[in-house]
Amino acid sequence: MGRLLVVGIGPGSAGAMTLDARDALERADVVCGYTAYIELVRDLVAGKELFDTPMRGEVDRCRWALREAARGRTVALISSGDAGVYGMAALALELAQDVPEVEVEVVCGVTAALSGAAVLGAPLGHDFCAISLSDLLTPWEVIERRLRAAAAADFCICLYNPASHRRAGHLARACGALLDAGKDPSCVCGWVRNIGREGQTSRVLSLGELAQEEVNMFTTVFIGSSTTVERDGRIVTPRGYDLR
Amino acid sequence: MGRLLVVGIGPGSAGAMTLDARDALERADVVCGYTAYIELVRDLVAGKELFDTPMRGEVDRCRWALREAARGRTVALISSGDAGVYGMAALALELAQDVPEVEVEVVCGVTAALSGAAVLGAPLGHDFCAISLSDLLTPWEVIERRLRAAAAADFCICLYNPASHRRAGHLARACGALLDAGKDPSCVCGWVRNIGREGQTSRVLSLGELAQEEVNMFTTVFIGSSTTVERDGRIVTPRGYDLR
Repeated sequence: MGRLLVVGIGPGSAGAMTLDARDALERADVVCGYTAYIELVRDLVAGKELFDTPMRGEVDRCRWALREAARGRTVALISSGDAGVYGMAALALELAQDVPEVEVEVVCGVTAALSGAAVLGAPLGHDFCAISLSDLLTPWEVIERRLRAAAAADFCICLYNPASHRRAGHLARACGALLDAGKDPSCVCGWVRNIGREGQTSRVLSLGELAQEEVNMFTTVFIGSSTTVERDGRIVTPRGYDLR
Repeated sequence: MGRLLVVGIGPGSAGAMTLDARDALERADVVCGYTAYIELVRDLVAGKELFDTPMRGEVDRCRWALREAARGRTVALISSGDAGVYGMAALALELAQDVPEVEVEVVCGVTAALSGAAVLGAPLGHDFCAISLSDLLTPWEVIERRLRAAAAADFCICLYNPASHRRAGHLARACGALLDAGKDPSCVCGWVRNIGREGQTSRVLSLGELAQEEVNMFTTVFIGSSTTVERDGRIVTPRGYDLR
């Protein structure tokens, strides 16, 4: 029986990968993924058959991986971060409906909400939500409704895909929606770029400043709740312990 | 200079730990944590000084770890899952304010939202939130407000701490709040108990059934969005790709 391993490789550094993910890459006969993610694991998959496709080739890539697995092979389909969070796991499980002879296994990894948070301190120390600002597959109205609900519920917020070549103004629009929904402009925020990779950079700033900030597609953004504070340059959302 | 490494050890199996977490445990002179979590890594910390404290000893444990680090030692303070999500990172960074001679480093891990999701399929394949049902440190009114907002925004929801000896009825109350806020009783849900550990069990069920379900404190609960579906016994929240 063929196997499709949908593997989250973490943020990019070898150290932030789980042992199960590394093991899955070793078990695979063929490794398949977006070109830039294949690059991140090139040392680990030396000598294996590789199939890389450019971005936005997700459906084709997934179908190819299932076809190869249906031939009795073990195929690793890689996502950065966790395969279950804006990754390939859901798509693979949907398409696998038509390929019952393939067993699909999801191998979890560290998503950018967690790896980025660790760089900044502990911004997600209490209830939080993750929202993608990409409107390629989700109407902006849905995104904005979720931003407003997150503000009303006082969640800590992690924003994925805050920008792209096509979406330069999305972060400013998102911050505008949050401010309009009652978030304080002084709310403690932060961003991390190239998490765990060469050129990792981060900044702690207010929501008012974030609304003016230029970020790129390799950036993960964090917006605090009303209890989030800055401590020695790091972001902390307390759980609520009595420290007296 | 002393170092405090706040380490997320993942759900419990050695394979779901990151290499950085394993490395942090190796670097540590002393390892400190809740007794049950120390047990999970006992093989990795053989020969090291261990300091374990019972549950609810979080503040004392953290202060002890900082005092030891202030003596110039490298101390690993462990959390299950990710240290930044309902873990020890925020508390450590808050208390470290008083101990400037200690450098604090957060080492991220796989939180139960991710490891549990992988067991069930891909329930968090689109925007999601994490809410803890523990009212030890958070008033129930705040928890319920977040549940209602999550329902209104159609987030996928991951519930932490759905029960304890003291909180037998919290999951039923939470499901009641979600239904009352307009969630469909047929909404696809699931739970996973003892993720990555001996006795791992999971179930896929409807929100209406979940409201009647008995779960324990070692369970993580997933509640789908309006687009979440069941596929071959697994839970999938599609990102929205066109599959024609």
